[in-house]
Amino acid sequence: MDTRRRIERALKTSLELAAAPPCPRHLALALRHAVFPGGARFRPNLCLLVASACGDAHPALTEAAAVAVELLHCASLVYDDLPCFDDAGMRRGSPSVHVAHGEELAILAGNALIVQAFDSLARAATNAPSLLPGLIRVIARGVGSPSGIAAGQAWESETPPDLGTYHRAKTGALFESAIIAGALTGGGDPLQWTGLGHRLGEAYQVADDLRDADGRPEVLGKPTGQDAAHGRPSAVRELGHASALARLDALCDEVVARIPACSGRHDLITFVRGWQAHHQPEPRAAVAP
Amino acid sequence: MDTRRRIERALKTSLELAAAPPCPRHLALALRHAVFPGGARFRPNLCLLVASACGDAHPALTEAAAVAVELLHCASLVYDDLPCFDDAGMRRGSPSVHVAHGEELAILAGNALIVQAFDSLARAATNAPSLLPGLIRVIARGVGSPSGIAAGQAWESETPPDLGTYHRAKTGALFESAIIAGALTGGGDPLQWTGLGHRLGEAYQVADDLRDADGRPEVLGKPTGQDAAHGRPSAVRELGHASALARLDALCDEVVARIPACSGRHDLITFVRGWQAHHQPEPRAAVAP
Repeated sequence: MDTRRRIERALKTSLELAAAPPCPRHLALALRHAVFPGGARFRPNLCLLVASACGDAHPALTEAAAVAVELLHCASLVYDDLPCFDDAGMRRGSPSVHVAHGEELAILAGNALIVQAFDSLARAATNAPSLLPGLIRVIARGVGSPSGIAAGQAWESETPPDLGTYHRAKTGALFESAIIAGALTGGGDPLQWTGLGHRLGEAYQVADDLRDADGRPEVLGKPTGQDAAHGRPSAVRELGHASALARLDALCDEVVARIPACSGRHDLITFVRGWQAHHQPEPRAAVAP
Repeated sequence: MDTRRRIERALKTSLELAAAPPCPRHLALALRHAVFPGGARFRPNLCLLVASACGDAHPALTEAAAVAVELLHCASLVYDDLPCFDDAGMRRGSPSVHVAHGEELAILAGNALIVQAFDSLARAATNAPSLLPGLIRVIARGVGSPSGIAAGQAWESETPPDLGTYHRAKTGALFESAIIAGALTGGGDPLQWTGLGHRLGEAYQVADDLRDADGRPEVLGKPTGQDAAHGRPSAVRELGHASALARLDALCDEVVARIPACSGRHDLITFVRGWQAHHQPEPRAAVAP
């Protein structure tokens, strides 16, 4: 089974547990809306690729880790779109969850997705319980406080925000979790993989800032210009456009250089370079042909 | 060390991890505001009492379970008070978290508390990893979907709501989690304790509905009349005042009858009867002297 189908199947199985009776009907709809159809499924992909590169020692637990990071990512998008944050009406080309199902159900679906992420890990760990404490801590670190997504988002309320800490927490932390979790469940040495996710997260955030500054909403499926509209920290506002582009390329080179020697190194490089090519900001060809 | 001090110390230790650098300053304030000073700490008390009654096999893990259920309860109060839910400006006699720190930080603190609950369990389980999968599943069941707090709250968006399922999910589920978690970490047989939390939760919800209908805000430290104002399901609206009072007493009798034979049975009965006496709705003396 290819990676994408493996991820979708595992997500569907997990979601069906959360949306099963006696789940109230509208919460079940909001939960499915938050997770399907997905975006690139970048984080679970990364988790599966790293686990595979490390030997794929516990495939079911790897899938649960991939599910957990994606559910947590989906929850973070539901919150990001709320009126008190980005107030974004569209996400992935559809109405965002609070627009389709109301703010109450969006918040409750987000809560339930966070809980479901940890429940998925626990269900899959019955045969390898010794891995579970480390796995939960690695994934919790990517989303909670003091240095995960919740903390990252909270940096937007600080004056002045620390751009590096903000990016590390808001984006890099969950990438780091996805990679270290994959190393743990795959049977590798997590220490060899430390720091890679933070570099990749920084690259991702720079690409996201560039697209927010330059992209077209009809191509991205979500509103653009949000960083400027909300006065949020952004690599484009901080560094200027050209330097932000150069930073993106330098970060991708660093990521590739840091992938440890392993059987799946080539596949991982292909994945990173593919993402890099796909995520070049649209107007770039005109700026630097 | 008495139970209350043990709970406060364990909560403080867990919160300090979440609020440590690099946690943004305002998120750290919102996190502490959500958890301290607490209310009755009813759920963690219950967890410790049951674990003690079962033999107190893993005290550190019991404390982590008590911390987890209390952090999850505190998170649920933060969400309950938000403008899109109860829009409550006061909680425990102080401004609610979103009033004091803004809606964004309230939501982020709630998210971080949910994550911190599972992180606390994982940190304490290093010496007893085989208990962790069951413990996480038991606690996740109390707060997520399809039958925990998030689902319970979502029943308020259904027409008509099923009052029994709503109460079981919104209140009983986390009581059940607290008790079963205590049985697990104490070394008891969780099956002997099944269903007790749901009865207790139902009693608690009936008492809460009565206080919402009859209580004085200055005594309770929060607004009253919320069920009627928001058209929410309530035992008082459903059964009438006198039958709701009789139901409360009958449920407490059922709870006491179901406590299994164990060394701590007497302490648990004292705890339940103490709570029952303390939570008699204020106007009751006038209605039935």
